[in-house]
Amino acid sequence: MSYEHKIVRDVEFSDTDMAGIMHFANFFKFMEAAEHAFFRSLGLSIHTDDPNEVSWPRVHAGMDYSYPLRFEDSVEIRLLVREKREKSLVYSFVFRKVSGEPQREVARGSLAVACVKRDAATGRMKAVPIPQAIADKIEPAPPEAFES
Amino acid sequence: MSYEHKIVRDVEFSDTDMAGIMHFANFFKFMEAAEHAFFRSLGLSIHTDDPNEVSWPRVHAGMDYSYPLRFEDSVEIRLLVREKREKSLVYSFVFRKVSGEPQREVARGSLAVACVKRDAATGRMKAVPIPQAIADKIEPAPPEAFES
Amino acid sequence: MSYEHKIVRDVEFSDTDMAGIMHFANFFKFMEAAEHAFFRSLGLSIHTDDPNEVSWPRVHAGMDYSYPLRFEDSVEIRLLVREKREKSLVYSFVFRKVSGEPQREVARGSLAVACVKRDAATGRMKAVPIPQAIADKIEPAPPEAFES
Amino acid sequence: MSYEHKIVRDVEFSDTDMAGIMHFANFFKFMEAAEHAFFRSLGLSIHTDDPNEVSWPRVHAGMDYSYPLRFEDSVEIRLLVREKREKSLVYSFVFRKVSGEPQREVARGSLAVACVKRDAATGRMKAVPIPQAIADKIEPAPPEAFES
Repeated sequence: MSYEHKIVRDVEFSDTDMAGIMHFANFFKFMEAAEHAFFRSLGLSIHTDDPNEVSWPRVHAGMDYSYPLRFEDSVEIRLLVREKREKSLVYSFVFRKVSGEPQREVARGSLAVACVKRDAATGRMKAVPIPQAIADKIEPAPPEAFES
Repeated sequence: MSYEHKIVRDVEFSDTDMAGIMHFANFFKFMEAAEHAFFRSLGLSIHTDDPNEVSWPRVHAGMDYSYPLRFEDSVEIRLLVREKREKSLVYSFVFRKVSGEPQREVARGSLAVACVKRDAATGRMKAVPIPQAIADKIEPAPPEAFES
Repeated sequence: MSYEHKIVRDVEFSDTDMAGIMHFANFFKFMEAAEHAFFRSLGLSIHTDDPNEVSWPRVHAGMDYSYPLRFEDSVEIRLLVREKREKSLVYSFVFRKVSGEPQREVARGSLAVACVKRDAATGRMKAVPIPQAIADKIEPAPPEAFES
Repeated sequence: MSYEHKIVRDVEFSDTDMAGIMHFANFFKFMEAAEHAFFRSLGLSIHTDDPNEVSWPRVHAGMDYSYPLRFEDSVEIRLLVREKREKSLVYSFVFRKVSGEPQREVARGSLAVACVKRDAATGRMKAVPIPQAIADKIEPAPPEAFES
């Protein structure tokens, strides 16, 4: 059972915009990279070629920005499982600049994803319970995990 | 005084991901395009080369997703000014698919931006009151504007 | 029969990088947007949900850059069909800034695409002749078309 | 003196498109990442805040594609210095899939960059000789380096 994962990413030139900082939409790409790395850390993949597998469409994504990130900054993205529901997961993400000075939290994100499967009859995606093999590996983070 | 602006965008191939739908982070780019078009509709630009001008860093961005968008879908992004504060603005965005059937709301976004200026003494960005020439052109949308 | 198509695009904030200009990779996205608009102008789509339809993977893409594009510049992208072969197409693209002064050519691109179909036996993509219904609508541009 | 650098990147979900493969324009972003990593490997940065420093606008970028890259593929990008001229550099790039099977070359890119500086009198960028401190660290790759 796991409730946490960390990755470190470097801000690349193509992540920046004319304000000289990482474009705000790219924080969401970094957030997603942490989500997918979390799945890999559990021996899972967020995406398989099997049409009978579940997929994880986004229901909500949000980000609070405190400080900008710049070219060649290293940023740690720490994922925490905030909620584990029957048919969905909610993650929190803390972005922390870990290169140069000052090193500090620069953003905080959230992501709610639904567990869905294509309905054989209608061809439409519908929410389904998280498969046991996945649910068994994920647990919500304890309250104190959000304090550090 | 204005509190609203609409743009229409088509989903391009490079906006999609391997799930066959517009990548969730690209909704934020479309949202920003609507924000900047709103400024242009007021005779303003979100960005000037003048270092004495204010700029508008993002403080919060969020999106609730109801339905996916696909390649060649046309989507209307309707901006509404939700709040006008002394040193910041909060926008709401309604994404509505306006091509094919069914035409419907597919996402709802929010964006909070601060009005900042480089402090001559410290070189740091600091929040400043929205310049009168800009503030005079923007007003919060009335409650009924959010219902349609 | 058609050999040409033009679109106009505005450079958005998210297209720029910290050098204050459109990131060089985004010229390729604009180029592709012109290719897809060309197909639509012929009543076709570059992509359908029918797995028996052909698709058009990129074999080569190139760009020569003369001048930068900046935020809120309008750029015309003019597609010309350079070569029509049995199983592939080669396009040329001329990027011309059409807002502000000076208005001028800023870049010139090329794109070679193969016509492929999934082989039922092996499951692999293989090059196939361009379907007649598509080939009938496309012709190579005459030499003088490249001079203007 | 160096003429070569290698990085490894993983294809992320946001790098893919609805064809299920890495979007062709993103190969250029990976190419640029290798260029910037090459500079860092020499103790340099491609970008500094000093306006008197040179910068490296793109003059040409090209890519030949042999095989697609998919989500979670690892790709090695090998940079080779093809030409070192007085005021410009030309790089070659070999993209090689290094995860799963088959491992093989998937694309080959080229990038020509000019060394420019802002002219104090006119404010315009103009080509200048590569500064000695940089030129001393870079040499063209020998012919045999391109064969492996």
